[in-house]
Amino acid sequence: MNIKFKDCIEALKKLDYGGMYEGDFFLTWEKSDDEIAAVFAVADALRKLRERNYSTRIFDSGMGISIFRDNSTRTRFSFASACNMLGLSPMDLDEGKSQIAHGETVRETANMVSFMADVIGIRDDMYIGKGNAYMHAVADAVKQGYEEGVLEQKPTLVNLQCDIDHPTQVMADMLHIIHHFGGVDKLKGKKIAMTWAYSPSYGKPLSVPQGVIGLMTRFGMDVVLAHPEGYGVMPETEQVAEANARRSGGTFARVSSMAEAFRDADIVYPKSWAPFAAMEKRTALYGAGDMEGISDLEKELLAQNALHVDWSCTSELMRTTRKGRALYMHCLPADISGVSCEKGEVDAKVFDKYRPLLYRQASFKPYIIAAMIFLAKVKNPAAMLQKIRARGTERRI
Amino acid sequence: MNIKFKDCIEALKKLDYGGMYEGDFFLTWEKSDDEIAAVFAVADALRKLRERNYSTRIFDSGMGISIFRDNSTRTRFSFASACNMLGLSPMDLDEGKSQIAHGETVRETANMVSFMADVIGIRDDMYIGKGNAYMHAVADAVKQGYEEGVLEQKPTLVNLQCDIDHPTQVMADMLHIIHHFGGVDKLKGKKIAMTWAYSPSYGKPLSVPQGVIGLMTRFGMDVVLAHPEGYGVMPETEQVAEANARRSGGTFARVSSMAEAFRDADIVYPKSWAPFAAMEKRTALYGAGDMEGISDLEKELLAQNALHVDWSCTSELMRTTRKGRALYMHCLPADISGVSCEKGEVDAKVFDKYRPLLYRQASFKPYIIAAMIFLAKVKNPAAMLQKIRARGTERRI
Amino acid sequence: MNIKFKDCIEALKKLDYGGMYEGDFFLTWEKSDDEIAAVFAVADALRKLRERNYSTRIFDSGMGISIFRDNSTRTRFSFASACNMLGLSPMDLDEGKSQIAHGETVRETANMVSFMADVIGIRDDMYIGKGNAYMHAVADAVKQGYEEGVLEQKPTLVNLQCDIDHPTQVMADMLHIIHHFGGVDKLKGKKIAMTWAYSPSYGKPLSVPQGVIGLMTRFGMDVVLAHPEGYGVMPETEQVAEANARRSGGTFARVSSMAEAFRDADIVYPKSWAPFAAMEKRTALYGAGDMEGISDLEKELLAQNALHVDWSCTSELMRTTRKGRALYMHCLPADISGVSCEKGEVDAKVFDKYRPLLYRQASFKPYIIAAMIFLAKVKNPAAMLQKIRARGTERRI
Repeated sequence: MNIKFKDCIEALKKLDYGGMYEGDFFLTWEKSDDEIAAVFAVADALRKLRERNYSTRIFDSGMGISIFRDNSTRTRFSFASACNMLGLSPMDLDEGKSQIAHGETVRETANMVSFMADVIGIRDDMYIGKGNAYMHAVADAVKQGYEEGVLEQKPTLVNLQCDIDHPTQVMADMLHIIHHFGGVDKLKGKKIAMTWAYSPSYGKPLSVPQGVIGLMTRFGMDVVLAHPEGYGVMPETEQVAEANARRSGGTFARVSSMAEAFRDADIVYPKSWAPFAAMEKRTALYGAGDMEGISDLEKELLAQNALHVDWSCTSELMRTTRKGRALYMHCLPADISGVSCEKGEVDAKVFDKYRPLLYRQASFKPYIIAAMIFLAKVKNPAAMLQKIRARGTERRI
Repeated sequence: MNIKFKDCIEALKKLDYGGMYEGDFFLTWEKSDDEIAAVFAVADALRKLRERNYSTRIFDSGMGISIFRDNSTRTRFSFASACNMLGLSPMDLDEGKSQIAHGETVRETANMVSFMADVIGIRDDMYIGKGNAYMHAVADAVKQGYEEGVLEQKPTLVNLQCDIDHPTQVMADMLHIIHHFGGVDKLKGKKIAMTWAYSPSYGKPLSVPQGVIGLMTRFGMDVVLAHPEGYGVMPETEQVAEANARRSGGTFARVSSMAEAFRDADIVYPKSWAPFAAMEKRTALYGAGDMEGISDLEKELLAQNALHVDWSCTSELMRTTRKGRALYMHCLPADISGVSCEKGEVDAKVFDKYRPLLYRQASFKPYIIAAMIFLAKVKNPAAMLQKIRARGTERRI
Repeated sequence: MNIKFKDCIEALKKLDYGGMYEGDFFLTWEKSDDEIAAVFAVADALRKLRERNYSTRIFDSGMGISIFRDNSTRTRFSFASACNMLGLSPMDLDEGKSQIAHGETVRETANMVSFMADVIGIRDDMYIGKGNAYMHAVADAVKQGYEEGVLEQKPTLVNLQCDIDHPTQVMADMLHIIHHFGGVDKLKGKKIAMTWAYSPSYGKPLSVPQGVIGLMTRFGMDVVLAHPEGYGVMPETEQVAEANARRSGGTFARVSSMAEAFRDADIVYPKSWAPFAAMEKRTALYGAGDMEGISDLEKELLAQNALHVDWSCTSELMRTTRKGRALYMHCLPADISGVSCEKGEVDAKVFDKYRPLLYRQASFKPYIIAAMIFLAKVKNPAAMLQKIRARGTERRI
């Protein structure tokens, strides 16, 4: 789909998203439909501007702080890229090099790293009940710091993946779907299968499937969640999905086989994750410092995974999708059978066929993050985008 | 205190600080009173400008190199923030990732990381007789490199904490005091208690107490240093404090109890540190590679600390200060009883009451560092500040 | 030599180097003489501009990604400096902090870190047959990503040291030679001795000697390669050197003693490296995961090195060079006898005498890297350099 810059501006003018100014971004379902649409419109507009070599800087100086409590490549670089294109300098808080081990409180650290911060991006996805709560603690702390005159600006918090949702990922996924099918109005009645897939590794976060069912149910699609018994996601996110589906005129269903999920699907998203109950158990074991218990749990989970090695995205399965050509999606990196592991989430043949589309999917993330920051920092985003275009500063001279 | 931008300019115009241009910043007592005042005036002016959304960039490109030989959060982010607000890109020399283990000399490394460096900030505070000497070696090396045509610019060295002084910390502390009491002219006769406090951790640097007595004695205050027997600081810094007090019309006294120090104090700064003699011993043990000796020393020091667990800042003690409401200060992070440790430097109740003020205290550091760089890089700082304001470039559009 | 800005522009106008636009830089011998000359001319021009406080930014925003698969100080800072002076933000891909261990493919990682990347610099020098191949895989991947619409720009690849060549080092070395002798036309018939030297450390890469003989033979010089038996370099690079020498009217010879190499030399470059055959063996051992084999090989190599402890650059040897004052060169850090090791590549007396020249040699690297990027990103470099000068933006206000 070739979206035009002026269409983005027109779209923005019709939306009500004023509440995003000076706000944060935690979970997609805390945002209105208009707010979600505004993120897409700004992301598209920023990408258009960059493609045409316009500088999209709205900051002359300022910093973007990131805190990664789990490894990351694409989200790390997406966040840094988003900061860079807006004129902010990214800086990572490496907790290992800091004095945090000293017993410093979250509130204190949050303020101490934010003296010049316009945005804070956090990834904290491993422990149930912790990641999102930590992000709120940080956001509250810097808001208070701003009000108390500690900080000259209030940093915006962007959730780069928590225990509940992975908004920058699933928003990028959704924008990819919109582009692929030619517009949000083309999605009514499309079937998307979010399914568990086998992986020889252990303990992958649940935020992607939870985020997918929490967001994709808002567009009138038929969203199907499939997983083996015992691999359920956080119940609250299923409730969100149900409510969304009802409101949007779509459906949300759970099925217990990959085959059923894939049948006539327009979009498939096969991906491994750990059972919610196991993640809760692990959180408790970490809390108790029970390393032996964690090691036992790991073995148990790998054995449990191994019972479902047939949950893999094959060419045969892909042929059962709508006209045999559903859009295959993954948040990457995928466990590819015969490439990164003996047997994994997807066959190499399927992955290779969709590779360019998968990279394209990932490429929306920097723009989604930039749009989230933009909407939090700019009072009149449509006017600012037009101003950026009118000033005509070249990004690369 | 609401300092006005134009007051900063007026103050600067009356001061003689020309010697700071193209200079370095090692120890506060190597600077004249006017030079110290100039740092405060520029720091206040830069903060005013940033509050009002003026871009304070004086560099279009260029780098700020940091070398942290000890963990750091707030100083690391303060340095990066100071660089950012002036237009420099911060870059950390991680000695672990470099070829320094190869046996490279200080002179060589200093030049090799400074090709585009306008400032070098160093933290090296753990070994007596080493940190400050290392900074001088780096500063001499890049000066020579500049003169020999290796470097196109001479980087300014900023001491981010050495074995002797912690100038960016204590200058930020002092500016906080000035703001809190409504001006430097209000400080005459105020009593400030720099006192040792109990901590369950070992070997904290002496640069803060040394820096505090070396700087705070310059403003006509009554500076009291209190610590248990055996916890003396570097004798030279006490001599500096004595000379300063004599010159400024204040006093410098040593007492041997926290209670005595706190009595009628206007400001209290209770903080743990290691005995100077122990730090000297440790330096020698490290030099000899005697790891067993270090481990023994550590146990000895913790046992010694444990004898003084009553040196803790409590609400009761705070009530004995002037009108029961002295300004409580700490360089952070503090060891807070019942929060970060069982028993520590300060009670949670006291800390919580002063938390906003403590964060405010910390928030001066980026501006102090920026001011030090500014004064080393700008020939006519007052005119440049006015020029920055007149050009009116917005920081955030 | 004092090269004038306008001479650089005149030189550029006479050269044919259009093929560098949107290209990569892997090996010097893949570039034409005019292309090599263009890098020197742009590097000199950029340095002149920076010396005179002109901003040399050609990017308003954008990123420079570095991947260091071996430790590095000067190349790391040179790359970051080059990015900074052109307006790009450097960002390092720390493979330890990424999800690469997850089994992600090179093609995928390359795209995932390049969303806003204008340049990718890679150091991968340890394994024969691997480093250069890896760089090509990355360059191919991002070219494809650009063509498929994943990336909005095609990042230029700059080889920061591979198993075959170290182009940014030897180009900086060569520019140093040109400046030292007063122009490329003064080099005809000059003798340069690239000789092995003893080091107590093991397994140094071969890319410097290989790069030196591959580049320095292009200027009509008499290039001599000397090493003990068994320390041969990659045969292909000797073939390159031979062909170059024939074409340029110079010579390329191998000798088997340092004394012979030094005799009447105008330039000496004594430096340790591992035998090519041993590096190949090590690559195979790593491939097989044979850590014991590697440990044995290391011992073997150190024992082999120890047989040639007399291959050291002494004052006596230096006296045998042309008029006793050959230009001594090293890529740094050097193993200096009595300084960084008991017995090493060079005597402290020799090193100290040449220290300012050695640092000057190193100082060309950021400009060489910046020139490589500039030539890949700017369609008409001569006109752009003039434009930069005409716009007159100050780097430091």
